[in-house]
Formats: sequence, structure tokens, C-alpha cells
Amino acid sequence: MKLIARRKDEQQETTKVRVGDVIIGGSELVVIAGPCAIESYEQLLSTALEVQRLGATMLRGGAYKPRTSPYSFRGKREIGLETISQVKALTGLPVVTEVMDARDIEQVAKVADMFQIGSRNMQNYTLLTEVGKTKLPVFLKRGLASTLEEWIYAAEYIMAEGNDQVVLCERGIRTFETYTRNTVDITAIPALKELTHLPVFLDPSHGTGKWSLVSPVALAGVAAGADGLMIEVHPQPDLALSDGDQSLNFKNFAELMERIEPVAKAVGRALA
Amino acid sequence: MKLIARRKDEQQETTKVRVGDVIIGGSELVVIAGPCAIESYEQLLSTALEVQRLGATMLRGGAYKPRTSPYSFRGKREIGLETISQVKALTGLPVVTEVMDARDIEQVAKVADMFQIGSRNMQNYTLLTEVGKTKLPVFLKRGLASTLEEWIYAAEYIMAEGNDQVVLCERGIRTFETYTRNTVDITAIPALKELTHLPVFLDPSHGTGKWSLVSPVALAGVAAGADGLMIEVHPQPDLALSDGDQSLNFKNFAELMERIEPVAKAVGRALA
Amino acid sequence: MKLIARRKDEQQETTKVRVGDVIIGGSELVVIAGPCAIESYEQLLSTALEVQRLGATMLRGGAYKPRTSPYSFRGKREIGLETISQVKALTGLPVVTEVMDARDIEQVAKVADMFQIGSRNMQNYTLLTEVGKTKLPVFLKRGLASTLEEWIYAAEYIMAEGNDQVVLCERGIRTFETYTRNTVDITAIPALKELTHLPVFLDPSHGTGKWSLVSPVALAGVAAGADGLMIEVHPQPDLALSDGDQSLNFKNFAELMERIEPVAKAVGRALA
Amino acid sequence: MKLIARRKDEQQETTKVRVGDVIIGGSELVVIAGPCAIESYEQLLSTALEVQRLGATMLRGGAYKPRTSPYSFRGKREIGLETISQVKALTGLPVVTEVMDARDIEQVAKVADMFQIGSRNMQNYTLLTEVGKTKLPVFLKRGLASTLEEWIYAAEYIMAEGNDQVVLCERGIRTFETYTRNTVDITAIPALKELTHLPVFLDPSHGTGKWSLVSPVALAGVAAGADGLMIEVHPQPDLALSDGDQSLNFKNFAELMERIEPVAKAVGRALA
Repeated sequence: MKLIARRKDEQQETTKVRVGDVIIGGSELVVIAGPCAIESYEQLLSTALEVQRLGATMLRGGAYKPRTSPYSFRGKREIGLETISQVKALTGLPVVTEVMDARDIEQVAKVADMFQIGSRNMQNYTLLTEVGKTKLPVFLKRGLASTLEEWIYAAEYIMAEGNDQVVLCERGIRTFETYTRNTVDITAIPALKELTHLPVFLDPSHGTGKWSLVSPVALAGVAAGADGLMIEVHPQPDLALSDGDQSLNFKNFAELMERIEPVAKAVGRALA
Repeated sequence: MKLIARRKDEQQETTKVRVGDVIIGGSELVVIAGPCAIESYEQLLSTALEVQRLGATMLRGGAYKPRTSPYSFRGKREIGLETISQVKALTGLPVVTEVMDARDIEQVAKVADMFQIGSRNMQNYTLLTEVGKTKLPVFLKRGLASTLEEWIYAAEYIMAEGNDQVVLCERGIRTFETYTRNTVDITAIPALKELTHLPVFLDPSHGTGKWSLVSPVALAGVAAGADGLMIEVHPQPDLALSDGDQSLNFKNFAELMERIEPVAKAVGRALA
Repeated sequence: MKLIARRKDEQQETTKVRVGDVIIGGSELVVIAGPCAIESYEQLLSTALEVQRLGATMLRGGAYKPRTSPYSFRGKREIGLETISQVKALTGLPVVTEVMDARDIEQVAKVADMFQIGSRNMQNYTLLTEVGKTKLPVFLKRGLASTLEEWIYAAEYIMAEGNDQVVLCERGIRTFETYTRNTVDITAIPALKELTHLPVFLDPSHGTGKWSLVSPVALAGVAAGADGLMIEVHPQPDLALSDGDQSLNFKNFAELMERIEPVAKAVGRALA
Repeated sequence: MKLIARRKDEQQETTKVRVGDVIIGGSELVVIAGPCAIESYEQLLSTALEVQRLGATMLRGGAYKPRTSPYSFRGKREIGLETISQVKALTGLPVVTEVMDARDIEQVAKVADMFQIGSRNMQNYTLLTEVGKTKLPVFLKRGLASTLEEWIYAAEYIMAEGNDQVVLCERGIRTFETYTRNTVDITAIPALKELTHLPVFLDPSHGTGKWSLVSPVALAGVAAGADGLMIEVHPQPDLALSDGDQSLNFKNFAELMERIEPVAKAVGRALA
């Protein structure tokens, strides 16, 4: 059977996914930045203003956080959504945030411009089907041990319901290597470009788990043809409630943005 | 933090999980058998009668089937639940069946004696939390690429809600080997016995993906200390709508049951 | 092409590999035990006498040790070979010991009854070819990330030179799981029985990396149809120069041997 | 213990490895290109002339080929070395070629400018030690399932013998993904830059196994900070005796070289 998500032929254009004023999958490289988890209004706002100033055109921030342990910090939840709403009003940045439970879709949709489906939920078919019934774009992260084929089928679950605004995001797979948190499958980027017509992102923050490795891997993603990057940025990574090790501070994010531009240009892209 | 799921010391007894008249985690080895998916009343009933006659004390059968492709057979759903109800009335066998969506819990609970949480949903925290709020035992399969630690935390999500009737089921992990569908991590059985007080099952059908390998691996599981086995049995595996390659026919299941008994006895167990 | 190592049909008998008086691949289960590395005459002799008393019919002990770091203890080398010679004279136990370098084959062959090719060298084609030119049996461990197919081809390298006395030993593969040193692929045992006519061993010591898990996994191997077990035993595991964590002391080895017997009998085998 | 291979501090310069007139590890990006296996004088010469014209400054070509099956084409061997010698005389290109057997070192050293140690031999300690005793640079490929730490220790085996001219080459690791031959661990490049002072290469040909994916992954490697690329090029990939699927033809290699230059410049490098 011919999947909706599959590329028909080499000529087929990449699907344009529109998130507010931002177009993903066009000639411009899109940088989404922000904290792993929303911790406070001040934290999200200061980060949003800074990443916006430095060239990011979308904001990320988790209100609902999937955590391995039930006793870990699981996000500010409704308060986090409210914070998103306030920061959007001030900055105008479109926001992507994770939805973990089909019952939260309506509420999240009130403030989010794009749903994120996290790695653990890549094969949560209830969730895929339900976001497929909405009109909001979906940012679909790869499962920790999912093949490209399974990932494309997960996108198909969404698209089969009528929602064709899907972005695929490589965020590293689980391998035997322990020096890094995950192993970024950089080849997934051009491979997905062959296999599907959907835009492809890279998240080097989760992919590497170490802030010092984020920038070179981000540049690699751009060179490999990614349509965008998702980068974790935190005002004070040492104090972050989650993923501090892999978050860039403002200074490191500024340096990354400076380094991205010439690489993007070298592969025929402008920064959005 | 000391998890509820963790073993306190060597002396702590294995938790007894009661499913109808069946006790899991006691001195008797429990065999759960039945088809991957419920296809018809005749299929489920004939299988139930045969596996019961041969010594299985619980029935498995999927009404809701998670499938990689949205276009594959996804189970008989409500009709499947109705079939379970009818076959239970005739055979008296307690039934375990998968629940994939928190919104189905109430309906599934009307006919099931134990919820199954499948591999893809091992970190579906909504689902874990909601089955944790029920009184029904939960059969928690290991995620495809989940560590023992992550698996125990998934059990903790259920137990933290007050439901301590949890059974862990090893069903193979994803590795580089392609001859088998998955790689059975046999060491997980004694390792979990050290780490937790929960009963541990083995599913050699999904673990191997090949019917000819099911029996030797089932025996290995018993020898390694498993509290029970989950085995896929189908009247005509060649015609099965799912997982035919790994299903035993009645004759092969009969042979397996004959071979299990002496191995169980050799490690100090009787068949339930 | 039809490989020499491949099973012709279901009727074909398992190849009998003769090591001194010991027959591997027959109806009797063979236990090879001994220290990871030879540390001293006293250590090897005391271990040999004890494991012999408890039912092992072959001795293992490394004179040449492949080590990840060039600065680790790399074995007693020539002195270790001399120790093997002395202990054999006293106990009569046939000995398997690793050869790592084709240039050592002649010297090792003077004292060894069977060559071991370790995991790191499973695709060292020089070494495979050269042991293939000798008459000594070869104990071929699976590579850390080798598929069954690659492993059978490695055996073929030996057999193509005229040496058909090859034993395959599963010793765990590398996966994402970190609780155990490796992941024992228990299914490899029956799978190799289908694919080849060579005897198959299990090494639960390297497979698990933890002494407390060795016994249950050893029993699993017997139940799954292994022709034998290789077990690391050390008089004082805490003081071992290598692999102490996974070595059984004499008491634990005695308990294992007691537990093996009924399981072997349950699957139609006697202890050699 | 402080390894010779480990970086002392951030200031330490990358080791310069000199191969003929080529300097690896300096400011210029080095491209090594050529066929997987040497098949004929015409094949090697035509490829050498073409890749030289397009900007490659070193030639690769295998005379000794490690192959999974003993019955596959295993290289032209001595004839291949003679061909290397002739082509070097005509083109002046320094050549890297694999040595698989310590007994061949002397002969290979007569024509090669750099030894290649292949993935299967990354932990062949005999070979590492013996090339360590020579003065020739060593191109050390990562083992299929080797951690960064094990790889650095393999380099240490060479360096401990006095040879500090070692180049590390990432060539993909084995994972569950089957769409690509291996999974390129792009993060290994910056990670090794943190951990060691040795130059780091990327081989996107083996890494991906598909020629259509070679160019984007090559660019990713440059962006991530690689000191060079090793690329398989064949006059007629369809007719290649090995690795045809992953070899670029001359036209595709020309396109790749055009695309590399601006990316190299974007990260502050010139093409050698």
C-alpha cells in the first residue's frame, strides 16, 4: 500500500508545515529553542526573548514532562500552559509543547501552535490518532529504538486521520555507546528525505546529552539537509530541573547561531 | 528513594498476584496460552478448550491490537471483548487481554481478569497511572529497548497509584540480530528476581518470533526461574491474522507442555 | 553455496568433538570450568582438583589474555602454558586455553587440548585459518556484535581448512542493557542447532558478568539444549586478577553442579 | 593512568600525521578516495587519476580484503600491492591500504604510505602491537560495536609501542536499524576531539552503505569537525567486486567535491 507519508518521486516538494508565521520545510532553516521544562514565567520569558533576539523563530518548552520515575519533576502542567500563553503574548513566538495524554489535547491546543509527540509516545496510537483529528501541526520525535519504517508508519497514523502537517525529528537512538546519552543517527536525515516528503528536524540536545557536543552535531544536521533544529537553552543550565547537562546557556547558544549561518548558506539555505 | 517495586532483602517473598483462582508468584508455574488476536468465537473457544485440557490455567487473546501500520488488522475490539466474555463463561479460564487506551479501561475491565500493557506502551504513563487506579492485576511487558531499571520504574507508576498486583513479562529486546524477531534477555529473569519482589514471566513467542524456537526458549525460562510462561497458540498458525510464524499449533503446544513438566520439577516447581 | 558448517537436514547428527577422553556433542552434557586467567600454579591446581571433584570434565584457564587496555594484566603467557602442562599431568583434565596470535599456535598446541578463539578474534581470519590447519579442536566464541550468520561463517573459515572439530560458544552480545555485562542470547542455542551440526556451548560467566546470575542462566542454557557449559571458577573471586565479579567460588560452583544434574536429566541428558 | 592518546587539555593541538606530503590533522581537510578493492591496474589507475583531478590528495584501495565468507573475493593480495606501487609511481598519490595479518606488515609497508586497520581487527592486539613497532602512520577504523573508550585503548596499543602517527576513522556502528548498513555515530567526531588529540576521519561509504546517502553524510562529517573523509569511488559501481552499492561513480564524486568546499570553508577549513 502506498502510504500518504511516502515520497511519490524525486520531484515531489517537501511538505510545507505552517506554524504561525513560520514555514517549516521551505528554503529557510528553522531554529526552535527554549528550555526542556518550563520552570517559571521568568525562566521562560528570559529564554524566549534571548533566543528570539539571536534568531530562533519558534519557542519550545515542556509543561507536561514524561519522566522515567513517577517521583521525578513531571512539569508545571496547567500552570506551564498558562506561562506559555503569557510568553507568546509578549514575544509573538509560536510554541511547540509536548502532549502526553489524549485527554489533554484540547487544553494544550488552546496555547500551543504545534503539538510535540515525544519519543516514548511515538507508538502511542491513541495519541497519534487523536492529534491526527486536530488541525494543529505535529512535531513527531523518533522512538528510542524505532526504525525509519516504524517512524514513517507512526506519521501515517496521524496523516490517515486527515492531518498532513507533520514534522519528523531525529533525536538519537539507543545503542551500546554510553559516552553519549543517545546516538544521533545523522543518516536518518537524508534517508527520510528520500523516503518521505515531510520536513525533518534534528534535536542535538537529546541526541548527545552533553552541551559541549550540541553545536558540532547541530552543524552536522544542517549540512546533512535538516529543515530545522530544536535546541535546549536555559538561562542557568546548572540549576535546570531537567536536562541541564545538555542545555546551552545564552552565550553558547549565541555562538551556535553564529556558526550555523555560514553552514546553512553553504548548503543553500538561509536562516529563517 | 526506595521504590515500592524493589525487593527489600533476600528474605522478602515474591508478591502473589491473584487472577481468579490462579496464583502467580507462588510455587506453581503458570502457563498462559491462547491466540495473539481474537479472530472468531470458534477460534478462541477451540484454542481455550485445548490449552486448558493440556494444562494452561489462563487464556490470552487480543481484542485491541497495536500494529505498526494503521492499515493492518487492529483487532476485533468490542466484538473481541464480547467473545472473551462468552469463552470465559464456558471454560472458566481467567483471561488477560491488552488495553491500549486509558479510555477503554472500564470496558476492558468488565471482561478481563488481568490487563496486559504491551511493549509499545511500557512508558505510556497515562495508561500506567490509570490501570494503577484499578483493582485488576496488570501484566506489564518490557519495552523493546527498555532497561531493567526503566521497566521497574514503569511498574512503580502502577504501584504508586495503589495497585500492587503487577507481573513483569520479558518478551525480547531489540538488538542487531535479525535471525530472530527479538533477542530474549533470559538473564532478565534472575536479575529481576534480585531487584524486585514481583513475579516474572517469559513470552518466548514474541521473544523469538519463530515457532520452532519457542519450546527450547520456554524451557530455558522455566530453568532460569520464571514464574510463568505466556505462549501463543493458534488452531491453524498458517491462517492467523497476526503472528502466525511464532504461534504453536495444538500438537506443538501439547509437546511443549510435556517437556515443561520435568524441567519445572527439576527447579522445584509444579505446573499449576 | 552450501557451507560445511550448515546442517544438511533434521536427521543429521551433531558433530562429535573429541577432546582427550571427553566427547562434546554427544548425549552427555560437558562442563568446562576453571579460572579466567592463570595466576599461579596453586591457583590453577586447587581449582582444577575442586572442579574435577565436583563433576567438571575439562579445565579452562587463560595464559594469553586479550585486554581492552595495553596496561592491564595480559596473562602469564609462557609461564601460564607451563602451569597448564603441570596441572594436566596431575589431574588428567583436558584443557582449553585461548590463542590470540597465529604465531603462538605451535607453542599453545603443545599443552592445550582445544584452542579457544575469543570474542574479539571471531573475525581474525588469519587466526581462524591457521587453527583450521591444525588437528586440535577449536572452541569458537561468538563476537560481541556478530550475527549468527557471521559466526557460522567464522566457523567455516576453520572448517574450510580441513578442521571440522569446532564448538560454538554463546557468551553474550552487546546491547543497550547495562545491568549485565553482556546480554545472553539464549535463543542462539536452539537456532544454531537448526542451522548447523556443530556442538553449542554457553558461557554464562561472561554472558552475565555477575556471579549471582551465573547459575540460573547456566540452567537455562542446559534447558535450551546446550551441549555444555563453560564456567569461571576461582578460589577467591575477590582477589582475582580478572573477571572476579563473574567467577563462582568453590561453594557456589558445587551448588550449581547439584542444580544442573536434574535439569540435564529433564531434557534427556546426563552429566559427562 | 593517563593514556598517551588522551588529550591533555583544551589547548593541546591535534597531532599532525604526515603521509607523504599530506598533513592530516592540520587546517586543511583531507579527502582520501578510491575503490574498495583493487580489481585491476586500469581500475585503480583510472580512479586515482580522476579523484586526484577532483581534489583528493590520497588514494585508498584494498589488496587484502576481510570478508565474512571464506568463499568471497578476498582481494588481489600481492598483485594488488604491485598495482598500488605502479599507480603511485604515476600519480604520486600517497596510498592507504589495509593490513590484516601481522606477517604481511613488512610487505605491505614496501608500497603503502599508511596502514589501515579495519573494523574487524580493531581489537586484534597482535596487529596493533606490530604496526605500533613500525614508523608508518596507522588509519584505525572503529570496531563495529566498540565504544569510544575501547577505540582509544586500541590506539593506545599502537602508541604504547612508540608509533604516535594514528588517525581514527568513524565508519558506523551496528545498531537495530536495517535501512542503512551501519549507523554513523556523527557525535563520535566532536567527542573524540574532546577525548584525544588524534585526527579524526569519517568514512560515509561504509557508514551508510548506500551511495545516495554518502554525500549528505560526508558534509555532515565536515561540519562536525572531521579532519578528513574516506570515500569509496569506482569507475562502474554496478560492476564492483565488493561494496558497489556504497561506491560513488566519478560524476557523483565530482559533485560531492564541489559541495564539500563551501561547507569546509564555513567551518574554517580549506580543502587540502
